[in-house]
Amino acid sequence: MDMTGATHTTDDDRSETDEGPTTVNVGQFEFERGGSVDLDVAYETYGDPTNPPVLVAHALTGSQYVAGAAPEELGAQAGSWWDDIVGQGRPLDTREFFVVSANVPGSCYGTTGPASEGPDGEPYGPDFPAVTVTDWVRAQAQLLDHLGIDTLYAVVGGSVGGMNAIEWAKQYPERVERVAAIATAPRLDAQMLALDAIARRAITSDPNFGDGRYYGDEHPDEGLATARRIGHVQYLSKTSLEDRFGRRAAERAITAIDDPTADAFPYRDVVSYLDYNAERFTERFDANSYLYLLRAMDEYDLARGAGSDAAALAGFDGEALVVSYTGDWHFTVEQAETLATAFEHAGAAVSHRVVDSDYGHDAFLVEPETVGAPLSAFLDGGAEKAGFAPVHASLFS
Amino acid sequence: MDMTGATHTTDDDRSETDEGPTTVNVGQFEFERGGSVDLDVAYETYGDPTNPPVLVAHALTGSQYVAGAAPEELGAQAGSWWDDIVGQGRPLDTREFFVVSANVPGSCYGTTGPASEGPDGEPYGPDFPAVTVTDWVRAQAQLLDHLGIDTLYAVVGGSVGGMNAIEWAKQYPERVERVAAIATAPRLDAQMLALDAIARRAITSDPNFGDGRYYGDEHPDEGLATARRIGHVQYLSKTSLEDRFGRRAAERAITAIDDPTADAFPYRDVVSYLDYNAERFTERFDANSYLYLLRAMDEYDLARGAGSDAAALAGFDGEALVVSYTGDWHFTVEQAETLATAFEHAGAAVSHRVVDSDYGHDAFLVEPETVGAPLSAFLDGGAEKAGFAPVHASLFS
Repeated sequence: MDMTGATHTTDDDRSETDEGPTTVNVGQFEFERGGSVDLDVAYETYGDPTNPPVLVAHALTGSQYVAGAAPEELGAQAGSWWDDIVGQGRPLDTREFFVVSANVPGSCYGTTGPASEGPDGEPYGPDFPAVTVTDWVRAQAQLLDHLGIDTLYAVVGGSVGGMNAIEWAKQYPERVERVAAIATAPRLDAQMLALDAIARRAITSDPNFGDGRYYGDEHPDEGLATARRIGHVQYLSKTSLEDRFGRRAAERAITAIDDPTADAFPYRDVVSYLDYNAERFTERFDANSYLYLLRAMDEYDLARGAGSDAAALAGFDGEALVVSYTGDWHFTVEQAETLATAFEHAGAAVSHRVVDSDYGHDAFLVEPETVGAPLSAFLDGGAEKAGFAPVHASLFS
Repeated sequence: MDMTGATHTTDDDRSETDEGPTTVNVGQFEFERGGSVDLDVAYETYGDPTNPPVLVAHALTGSQYVAGAAPEELGAQAGSWWDDIVGQGRPLDTREFFVVSANVPGSCYGTTGPASEGPDGEPYGPDFPAVTVTDWVRAQAQLLDHLGIDTLYAVVGGSVGGMNAIEWAKQYPERVERVAAIATAPRLDAQMLALDAIARRAITSDPNFGDGRYYGDEHPDEGLATARRIGHVQYLSKTSLEDRFGRRAAERAITAIDDPTADAFPYRDVVSYLDYNAERFTERFDANSYLYLLRAMDEYDLARGAGSDAAALAGFDGEALVVSYTGDWHFTVEQAETLATAFEHAGAAVSHRVVDSDYGHDAFLVEPETVGAPLSAFLDGGAEKAGFAPVHASLFS
């Protein structure tokens, strides 16, 4: 078993990632929608490789740096993003489990993506093949092969990472025993497809985007910032934005823009917040990667090729945990219930935990206690131990 | 009384508007936030001027052409937008009432706005003063002075037109007897402020926007289209988008854009719908006007300068009708209830009709029967006749 520098075995080892991403080359990778690249998969591991392996799938703009040390430039959103969930003594205890996480194909944190150098020595840019959640799972399976892991004790993920987790039960049901799908859905609804398409078009219509070969020139930061602002609104609930910001004026001055209506009115704090975060985001994320990954999320549909969600999960006879949030309008409680029902109809033991939270979609990141307790119980004793089955069946009666 | 060609007295007269907008010059107009312009106000009237006068306020990108004939280039959204509500035998019956409607300052349908020619012979562009709902109401009052109308039997408006209506009760309580505020609120919440700011920035960051002096050159259509798409999502509910479009693929081909992820996946019908409507919108609306009017809506706050909503309405002792829609996330039922309560605390007779509709904010336009019945009853017999008072008090108990 090749356990290179990516392994975090103790809290003291957390600085080992300073030397950049650890990668494994899985060779020429054929993508679901056509095209292939010589694929490096960047990954991190945590804990003792002889313990039961758990794969953690990251969210849209997340990384393989689930917990502990992470490159500083990733910031708190992409680096060490589940530090309250994964670690020694944490709900996903790295003294009990061997945790593996990989950056998805198409991203920009070490796994090959549009910003990576292609065979001609230039970044792939728009020549990078379209990616799907199915591709991500197949790349992760190849990483596990490399690590000598045949069967996962569990796969855990939130948001599109939750789609990634349930796709494991569809694609490799024999290689995973437990699936924990947090704040996710079998597919997005029309409203989210609409907002995501608006976001993508904001990027591609930025004059700096050109045809996507902007590397070395000015990047389409304005369009990417617009896309991120739209995403940010999707990640928070109406209630949480109102409670946190209301109509309060910001303390900082607005970034200079030529808006003739700006000077006569206050710069609202909620706008300042989105602007600030969008600016930080453009410093850490590649616009093409955002296009590719957002599209992968939009186009994920658990039922595709199987006829129904339950049929897609027919081969899976393990246990499933579904966690959803009442304030989440990106991935709704109703969608999570559809997922839980599909697991049930497929014959899996499933527990659906509905968390009463106003925060919104990002609750799975910023209210880690809502994930920690059910996840810990689920890993310990399965759906029954998670203690909520079969409450999902009566949620909407 | 000057009753120029704008008057529709019978259905047969509906072609009279073919000669372009009818305007009255109200002289130099001082704006609330500073600046002044020589202001033309474009307006239409419907019915017999000796009947009780009712002012109808249009929504964000609407026009004075409430019903009957309208210039073709306005399309169905801006022209004759309430034809099911206003007319002979309609709920707001033009045989019983003299209906007046005016295009708001800052718009682009005949009333002076950023695209209008300034004193130097060039369009004002970004030199046009910032506009507020308060300005709109003062301009409307000056129009009524011109028409010889002292007191309105009623003012009626939906969306930001509803803000316009309630601002009448604040600013000229002695000049209006009844206020019908449809699908509106005393102020927007943080989520809407956020989305509107994203929309504005999409316009100002379009390279064709420049500093807002794009007239005669390429217009910032791409940015304006982004803004409109965002607005469109705000106007429809999550449920109605899902029921109407779901994840279905579009029949038409996507407008060519350089999105490297587009070719591998279907063009979704919901996206096609937004794109189509956004393209039509850029043909009829000025980007600067959109900036100015969107800002006026965002910055409206009934309580401003008065301390509370009820204090703002203290001078009004007439009757009020509030209509809200359960599927409206732009102007929510809860916000409408706040408004109804403020009217009640101010001593006005008020009826709050909550319409159970999945459609979303635009229900007040596309489900006219939901407006017609309560409006007709309200105009006939006030809040009590509207038949729902005081249900609002028990809605959330």
